[in-house]
Amino acid sequence: MTLNAVLARIDETLPQSLDRLMDLLRIPSISTDPAYKADCARAADWLVNDLKSLGFDAHAAQTPGHPMVVGHADGPGRHILFYGHYDVQPVDPLDLWDRDPFDPELQDTPKGRVIRARGASDDKGQLMTFIEACRAWKHVHGSLPGKLTIFLEGEEESSSPSLIPFLTENRAELSADLALICDTGLFEGAVPAITTMLRGLAKAEFTVRAASRDLHSGMYGGLARNPLHVMAALLANLHDASGAVTVPGFYDDVAELPDSLRQQWQSLAFDHAKYLGDVGLSHPAGEQDRTPLEMIWSRPTAEVNGMWGGYNGVGFKTVLPAEAHAKVSFRLVSQQDPAKVLTAFRAWAEAQIPPDCEIVWHATDGDPASVMAIADPAFEAAREALTEEWGRPAAFVGAGGSIPVAGYFKSILGMDAMLIGFGKDDDQIHSPNEKYDLDSFHHGIRSWARVLARIAG
Amino acid sequence: MTLNAVLARIDETLPQSLDRLMDLLRIPSISTDPAYKADCARAADWLVNDLKSLGFDAHAAQTPGHPMVVGHADGPGRHILFYGHYDVQPVDPLDLWDRDPFDPELQDTPKGRVIRARGASDDKGQLMTFIEACRAWKHVHGSLPGKLTIFLEGEEESSSPSLIPFLTENRAELSADLALICDTGLFEGAVPAITTMLRGLAKAEFTVRAASRDLHSGMYGGLARNPLHVMAALLANLHDASGAVTVPGFYDDVAELPDSLRQQWQSLAFDHAKYLGDVGLSHPAGEQDRTPLEMIWSRPTAEVNGMWGGYNGVGFKTVLPAEAHAKVSFRLVSQQDPAKVLTAFRAWAEAQIPPDCEIVWHATDGDPASVMAIADPAFEAAREALTEEWGRPAAFVGAGGSIPVAGYFKSILGMDAMLIGFGKDDDQIHSPNEKYDLDSFHHGIRSWARVLARIAG
Repeated sequence: MTLNAVLARIDETLPQSLDRLMDLLRIPSISTDPAYKADCARAADWLVNDLKSLGFDAHAAQTPGHPMVVGHADGPGRHILFYGHYDVQPVDPLDLWDRDPFDPELQDTPKGRVIRARGASDDKGQLMTFIEACRAWKHVHGSLPGKLTIFLEGEEESSSPSLIPFLTENRAELSADLALICDTGLFEGAVPAITTMLRGLAKAEFTVRAASRDLHSGMYGGLARNPLHVMAALLANLHDASGAVTVPGFYDDVAELPDSLRQQWQSLAFDHAKYLGDVGLSHPAGEQDRTPLEMIWSRPTAEVNGMWGGYNGVGFKTVLPAEAHAKVSFRLVSQQDPAKVLTAFRAWAEAQIPPDCEIVWHATDGDPASVMAIADPAFEAAREALTEEWGRPAAFVGAGGSIPVAGYFKSILGMDAMLIGFGKDDDQIHSPNEKYDLDSFHHGIRSWARVLARIAG
Repeated sequence: MTLNAVLARIDETLPQSLDRLMDLLRIPSISTDPAYKADCARAADWLVNDLKSLGFDAHAAQTPGHPMVVGHADGPGRHILFYGHYDVQPVDPLDLWDRDPFDPELQDTPKGRVIRARGASDDKGQLMTFIEACRAWKHVHGSLPGKLTIFLEGEEESSSPSLIPFLTENRAELSADLALICDTGLFEGAVPAITTMLRGLAKAEFTVRAASRDLHSGMYGGLARNPLHVMAALLANLHDASGAVTVPGFYDDVAELPDSLRQQWQSLAFDHAKYLGDVGLSHPAGEQDRTPLEMIWSRPTAEVNGMWGGYNGVGFKTVLPAEAHAKVSFRLVSQQDPAKVLTAFRAWAEAQIPPDCEIVWHATDGDPASVMAIADPAFEAAREALTEEWGRPAAFVGAGGSIPVAGYFKSILGMDAMLIGFGKDDDQIHSPNEKYDLDSFHHGIRSWARVLARIAG
């Protein structure tokens, strides 16, 4: 059985796979800082050369920002596109790192061996799991596992300014039958998971204005409208006593969870007490008739992300400010339309402000939720592959946050994505001392070999 | 009639009175800025010398901050203390001034002649009205008008750090039968007024805490408690639909306005439409069963002066912050006790926060309202004097803000105060291009002569 040969090859050559990852981790490809522009290009070139060595027709495609790495391999079967990103987050505060973030090291820790470096988990270690699986496959089979495109972005950590234009301009080249995205994690750090639902996001920033200037509360307090009171009332009214969002029509396009997913989620036995306990909380605070996993994966939210107005310095200033400000975001699910939600929110807010006030709306935007078509047999096949590799039932899970590229793949390229990743909650991505478990790397490579054996070619 | 002689002397020597004020205005006695410490001392010395020239036994009393000017004149009758302050506000932004703030000038404007300089109205021009009245009195009578103490502070614009200790340490010397304070204005810039009610102030600053760190709304949104929501609900609950404060017991110690004052206030025909219109408003927003003057003079309030939390920079950050903050102040009236109000507020707030939240209370304090005993015949006598000078009925009025020294005179020295001043709403105190109308100065001096004729000696 050739899969076993591939897996054996992966096990045998893990030290070499690790060496290659270390080489990539040494390149400080911080995309948001112009000082590292050449390093980003160098990381892209490194990947192009590596893909070429595997037989991919690869190149670094220039953009106004950092290059996109694109590699194609022809072959039989469905066209599968793999996505990862080679850029990394900045490293500050540098003094909180135990070592140079770009001098990677394999370290023994009480929880096992880890690869310590910026980008080890997010996302260089993860993207290399797929490339190493292809390498082992090629060695055993003499060819890559089917019709594959590898697409590696260099701007994921800096808001992906080139992504939409690039996907749009290269739609024909990049449109595959299915995408694989490796930028997520194991559920609770242990359960293999395929993310099939990603919440969307709609954002609103606004100002409540009353008087034409700041007023002294001695002269005007009790007589003049205080926009801080108006803003507080608006934000307080956003949820009812049961935790539901009060904006009319907000839940109109929200589907109930399918029974099959409900069962899988129940079987995950999500330890919400630990999840909340880790951040000092103990009570689920959302819609009181929903489970904690529903609250973060399949239910929409309205959250105030910022509010400010008046005096916030040391001491007191008895001011009635002229303005109060807030930033509110909505996590969206199912078929909720960001524009429709924002329109309803604006109308809801405008309807309740008192005389002498106006609301000024600032630029707002949004992206819908991504809900993958899990009826595609590839999803179940991948779930079986992951179950075999990790020795415990893999699950289709949700994600509370958006992964924008999955949405763009759907909206621009018309393809669904399977998000499979091997990160752990304690990987400290975006923080000092980022790491990737050696186990994540090793079993990640093996996972992809198993998945490709079932869905590629 | 000697009063007429005094008034004539005032009229004749107005140019010399103005010259003296100009001299005082040239001293940049900015109390809050250590760079002007010597100038504050110079202003105090200038005043000491001027008082001595009038026969006062005067000196500059040192404090840890700027000196207090104290001058005594013995004589018959009730002991009357006059208070003003010789320090001034900073002048920035300097580029918004039409001229050097410390190079005073008499200017012709469409509204009449004005004295343009920092401190012209607040409070050097005002305090000199009293001294000039004494000077003319002395010239005509050969003696000062009775048992007088003049007490001039140099730290009023920098929170008066030395005031309470100084009054406490010099209680015997400074305790008079009645205080006169010249640091207020004409009602609506035209009606002579004696302020007999000053609202107090209680301040509370607090933080609502939930999670142990900031959370990502993708991972926790809908599940974790958002302290911004908790804070918004707290602040929104502070008033009911009628505009009344909901804190239990808040109105317990609030007396209704005496009929005599209610009639005077009605006769003022306060143009609240203009008062609000000047700042872009049109609807009285406070307790809906109260008149606008009651709202700002005789009713207590709860006002949010600042609230903040989460992200308030450019763009969006989908954060659930760990903390939300607010500053709330209460304007107090009648017999309301600041400590009692703050205790009730804390209990009210603590009772309504949800699980997983706590409130951290920061330093808070307060001062009670000042309500003068207008049954003292001196009040009615002064009102008649002002009515004569200004040719229209003077009124006992309230003040929405506190003038702390009036409260300290009551609590430490046991004396009531009559607050009589001649400033106008457009004097731009604390702002660039401060001015004092020449009419305010001239009729202010004459007013004090008339008041002293009735209540001193």
